[in-house]
Amino acid sequence: MARTRYVVAVDVGGTDMKAALVAGTPTEASFVTQRRRGTPRASDGPATAHAVVDAVVELVEELRAASDHPVEAVGVVVPGVVDDDRGLGVFSANLGWRDFPFRMLLGERTGVPVSFGHDVRAGGLAEHRLGAARGLTDAVIMPIGTGIAAALVLGGRLHSGGGYSGELGHVDVGHGDPCGCGQRGCVETRASSAAIARRYSARTGKQVDRAAAVAEAVRAGDPDAVVVWDEAVDALARGILVAATLLGPQAVVLGGGLALAGDLLLVPLRKRLEELIVFQRMPELRLAALGDGAGCLGAALMAIDAVGA
Amino acid sequence: MARTRYVVAVDVGGTDMKAALVAGTPTEASFVTQRRRGTPRASDGPATAHAVVDAVVELVEELRAASDHPVEAVGVVVPGVVDDDRGLGVFSANLGWRDFPFRMLLGERTGVPVSFGHDVRAGGLAEHRLGAARGLTDAVIMPIGTGIAAALVLGGRLHSGGGYSGELGHVDVGHGDPCGCGQRGCVETRASSAAIARRYSARTGKQVDRAAAVAEAVRAGDPDAVVVWDEAVDALARGILVAATLLGPQAVVLGGGLALAGDLLLVPLRKRLEELIVFQRMPELRLAALGDGAGCLGAALMAIDAVGA
Repeated sequence: MARTRYVVAVDVGGTDMKAALVAGTPTEASFVTQRRRGTPRASDGPATAHAVVDAVVELVEELRAASDHPVEAVGVVVPGVVDDDRGLGVFSANLGWRDFPFRMLLGERTGVPVSFGHDVRAGGLAEHRLGAARGLTDAVIMPIGTGIAAALVLGGRLHSGGGYSGELGHVDVGHGDPCGCGQRGCVETRASSAAIARRYSARTGKQVDRAAAVAEAVRAGDPDAVVVWDEAVDALARGILVAATLLGPQAVVLGGGLALAGDLLLVPLRKRLEELIVFQRMPELRLAALGDGAGCLGAALMAIDAVGA
Repeated sequence: MARTRYVVAVDVGGTDMKAALVAGTPTEASFVTQRRRGTPRASDGPATAHAVVDAVVELVEELRAASDHPVEAVGVVVPGVVDDDRGLGVFSANLGWRDFPFRMLLGERTGVPVSFGHDVRAGGLAEHRLGAARGLTDAVIMPIGTGIAAALVLGGRLHSGGGYSGELGHVDVGHGDPCGCGQRGCVETRASSAAIARRYSARTGKQVDRAAAVAEAVRAGDPDAVVVWDEAVDALARGILVAATLLGPQAVVLGGGLALAGDLLLVPLRKRLEELIVFQRMPELRLAALGDGAGCLGAALMAIDAVGA
């Protein structure tokens, strides 16, 4: 049996940083202590990246001081394009950095081995090892929030594609609406939580800021909400169809804020996908099991893997 | 250094069966003797599958008799949906079988270990080990002929997806034309060699049966040929864009009959893809190196791997 390791994990988000002291093995991990603080912003991308490094180091020191066991390693995950092999934050549209050597700097500052990776892939790793995708060889784990991305478990391993994999939210599914990314017809322009709220607001003039409010309206029979919801389901089904056509996953795990809608999402999504699928393998649709702690748990697993190896 | 193995490889196609005695190691393989014969057809799918087994056994005996070395293993690849792990031909639209236990039957009849797999993935394996995708971690190998499929090398390994992976020819790229598969907008409806020939014939009334004739007409400045060619390039670029968005491959290797057009295909395809790409990693576009022997070489490598392991 693998020995229990104590590691600190930090999931750097666009708004918040979630950190935790985690106790675990490569197949079991749980939070001992959790912390949350705002993600620092500075004048430009490199300055923001340095401020993030400072904030991560502070969180590590804080959790280390609170731990009854020596902290053996640190796992840190960030959004955007991430080069896991070289430990670089290649690009973040939101936080502004380019080719920033997070792993090296964090290693120097914390004095323990640092694993560095991508927030969505780390969440997928956690769902694969500990959550809704456990035991599967081929699965797509899709958090749906402000945007939509996917972690791809293929042949039992996370696929990175040099940091460029999993942009399922930016596949063109034919609706033609422009996306912030510069393309048209992107899945996330209709199906992200943010898009659902925005489209309902635009359609009705009632300002809502979360998809949960639209879900409520759908349950109440609001016809505008039903149209927006159906269009989101259609875009999502077409995106999943592309993943099924190219990759043949056994299951698609839906996470993020939108998955909190539960059957209101799953039932029509399954129906639409069944209508669209012809020869592809129909993936099982599941809800994520780990909630918004998945990225942090995944970062912890990466750190545990590194010290165990 | 790995010892040279002698194996027999058979690539069962919809029309022809290509067979060869191959001498090689996991990283080097070459044809000693080659054979080709028509693929047998019988009254129904199971009967066709049994006839194919008989034909494979005959080819193995013939090549074994011609070999100066004992044949240690056999590799056989077939089209359609293939379950590599269980050695089943799950489904072939063209040849009609369902869940046919090829590996088991061939093992009993030949008396040597049999590796069984998928024609396109085997071709991809050969291009990855010996050809145009050598040394790459992440690559898409696309043979373009009657249809379009793709072998996906991800993290250095062929991805199977339970036999369902790689149907890049059936991704909807928005042109709306119906496909034989039952969907609309499929890449291969515009970009396969067969589609290019068919669409040029339909447009001009001049019957051509191969894309090579349309390529000739493009070179000669025929405006109808140019339209059909451009539409094919656009569909293909959009299909590759989807693969880039989801998988982030370093390179896309184009094979099959259409790739014989060389720069007439590559140059406008690269240009169109550069226009479409926004944040995705631009894959290098390469021509396949192994021609139509790739599937057979891949089958041989599978057999060599199995006896070497």
